[in-house]
This record gives sequence, C-alpha cells and structure tokens, in this order.
Amino acid sequence: MEQFAKTPKTTLKRLPQRGEFDREAVYKILDEALVCHVGFVVDGQPFVIPTSYGRVGDTLYIHGSAASRMMRSLSGKIPVCITVTLLDGLVLARSAFHHSVNYRSVVVFGQAELVEDELEKMSALAALTEHIVPGRWAEVRSPNAQELKATTVLAVPLEEVSAKVRTGDPKDDDEDMAIPVWAGQLPLTLTPGSPINDSLLAPGIELPDYVRNYQRS
Amino acid sequence: MEQFAKTPKTTLKRLPQRGEFDREAVYKILDEALVCHVGFVVDGQPFVIPTSYGRVGDTLYIHGSAASRMMRSLSGKIPVCITVTLLDGLVLARSAFHHSVNYRSVVVFGQAELVEDELEKMSALAALTEHIVPGRWAEVRSPNAQELKATTVLAVPLEEVSAKVRTGDPKDDDEDMAIPVWAGQLPLTLTPGSPINDSLLAPGIELPDYVRNYQRS
Repeated sequence: MEQFAKTPKTTLKRLPQRGEFDREAVYKILDEALVCHVGFVVDGQPFVIPTSYGRVGDTLYIHGSAASRMMRSLSGKIPVCITVTLLDGLVLARSAFHHSVNYRSVVVFGQAELVEDELEKMSALAALTEHIVPGRWAEVRSPNAQELKATTVLAVPLEEVSAKVRTGDPKDDDEDMAIPVWAGQLPLTLTPGSPINDSLLAPGIELPDYVRNYQRS
Repeated sequence: MEQFAKTPKTTLKRLPQRGEFDREAVYKILDEALVCHVGFVVDGQPFVIPTSYGRVGDTLYIHGSAASRMMRSLSGKIPVCITVTLLDGLVLARSAFHHSVNYRSVVVFGQAELVEDELEKMSALAALTEHIVPGRWAEVRSPNAQELKATTVLAVPLEEVSAKVRTGDPKDDDEDMAIPVWAGQLPLTLTPGSPINDSLLAPGIELPDYVRNYQRS
C-alpha cells in the first residue's frame, strides 16, 4: 500500500493541501528526524515526552528504561500519538498574521506493543542506534543480557499515519503587497559542529568517517 | 519564586540529577526553542501537535485558527502538556547501551485559558512573532479585527514546569573503556542558511539586520 488511508484523526480539516499520505514521503521525514514526541494519557492527564526512535519497515520502535513511567504506561496497550517535526525555516510575511514556519511533520496514532522476542528486540535496538548514527552498531559493544533486560522496547505499527508539510514563500494578502518590508524565507538546518573526543578517549583512536561526514538530510 | 515546585508529575524518577527546576534556566530553554509539542486528549485519544509559541513572563501563549481541533479542544479547559526540546548533540559511547543525545527539554503541565481581552491578545501575538524573529513585530502590519477574530489565543500559566538536561561525555562502563572505538560528542545546532527573497519582493527592499544576523542561542 503506497498511501496511508485517511481516517477521521488524520484528515486535515484546515489547509488540506498540506496533508501528505504517501508512505515513502512519510518515511523520509521519519528517517531524517532524530527525536520524536510521544504522547500518552495517565489518569486523564496527557504526557508528551521527547525520545529517540528507529524504523524498520512499517514499524516504529522506541525504547527506554523498564522503570520509566512512559514505558510502563505504554506497555499497557493504551492509545499513543507519536509526532516527529522537522523545522525547515522561518517564513516572514508583510503582515504579522501570515508569518509562519516551513516544516515537515508526521503524526502516528496507534497502540504500542511490547517487544518480547529477543531477536526482534535486538534488531530494534540496532535500528535505534543506526537511526542516530548510521554505521555505528557494528562497531560498538552489543547489549548484553542484563542491558536487554533493563531496556523496554515498544513497537508501534505505522498504520494510522499522516504528514503535514509547508514549503515556500509567505502568502500575503494582495492589499499588503505594497508594504515596504522585507519578506521571504530564512532556511534552518540542524548542522553538525566539530566532534568532541570523549575526555577518556585512548590515544590513537581516529574519528570515523560516519562522524566526520555526518549529515542528516 | 526562583524555583518551580516539584510535583508528582514533574519529579524525575530516573536520573534525578538531570532535573532542572530553576525558573531562569527553564525560561532560557523556552526562549531559545522555536517549536513546542502540545499534547491534549480527545475521547481518550492523545494528540501531539507541533506549533509555535511565545512567552510573556510566567505565561506561555499558543495560537491557531479558531476552527482547528487543537484550539477548540483546548478552549474547553482540558489538561494540556506542552513540551519543548532542544537537541544539542549526539553522544557516542563504546557500548550501544550507553548511546545517548545531549538535549534540553521543558515540560509544562496545566490548563489553557482562552485569551479574550483584546489588549492581552494583541500582546500575545506580538510575543509569538517576536519569539520567532525578534524585531519583526514593529515592522509588519498588525493583525486587523477580522484576523484577530479568526485567531484563537490560549494562555498556559507556567506553574507546573520542569526541565531536563543532558550534557557532556558518554558514560561508559569501566569494563568497556578498552574497546578501540571512537567515543565522544557530535554537537548539533539549528543553523540559518541564506535568506530567500519572496518571489514577489519589490525591488530595493533590503534584508533587515535581524534576518541577516539571525541566531537562536
């Protein structure tokens, strides 16, 4: 299925032209972003917690300490909403009203499943690590039995999903076009700085290319 | 009050040393980030929606179309959770388990209040615009009566608030220190690119300094 089905929760009521349901387009956003915001409800109170994630095919994985509120709550098969946002730029219009930002966001609705199968758990953790730094998993020590036990991994199927995208120029009203103020876009990108060696790094260990050439988009 | 009071919802059960309750430290994070993620519940289903915001003193403002689901739901005085996350870098450890990210995040719990007073509404919209681009509000056309009517502004008091901060090196286990793999941090920053003139920009309008020298942190 190349498109996600629109549902009442994922249909945009306003500006429907910003909606994006193409599976590949959605996955591209999920694969570029680093952090998601996980929403869940405990006793009627919403919680929104930032965390990292990984994707394997049509499944999103998150992980955390088995002791955390988020992991314990979500293991109880409650509804979850996971949102990923890439901020691409500021949009400066001639009127305050039409100021905006360019962005790409994905919203996933579903229910988390506890990953109990050890092989799936290990693949999910590999996906989480590779999502942050591609090439890293093969070089580092894999999780041991104790670490696996201390880590809860949850799988959220990518079924009820939509993206929302804004690009391009500000959209000013015709009667504002003569206002003599600069209008346009200021692009923003998440840019790597200079890598910082661990203060305990042994001498002679070189910076890997996947860190030196790190790029997100 | 210089510190936010810890509550059951804002007390960190794990890694309490990452908790930050100092009001100024929290406000610094809120003022640097551009986007928040707003969590609310409709019929038991959590929604997490990215949006811009502004801060005036101890109040956070968000805005949106009066027709949007988020604005309509939140106007009903339901519990809200607003989370702001700054991603500062990747933390590469010698074991997969200790990989992490450096970040600063703020979580606000509360209830939104519809802003009906016209003066407060206008100041809130000024704060929202100035939050994105300081210096902009005075140069652009202010919202007119029709735009004000179409815009819902909500105020969330900054009362039940906490921040969480991770900085610095990876924390590997002693027995992993001899693994001959690079470890350290890769800083990440949201960086402005070259401004893009609106395709309809009139000739002779110069780029303002607040765009040319735009910086977030």
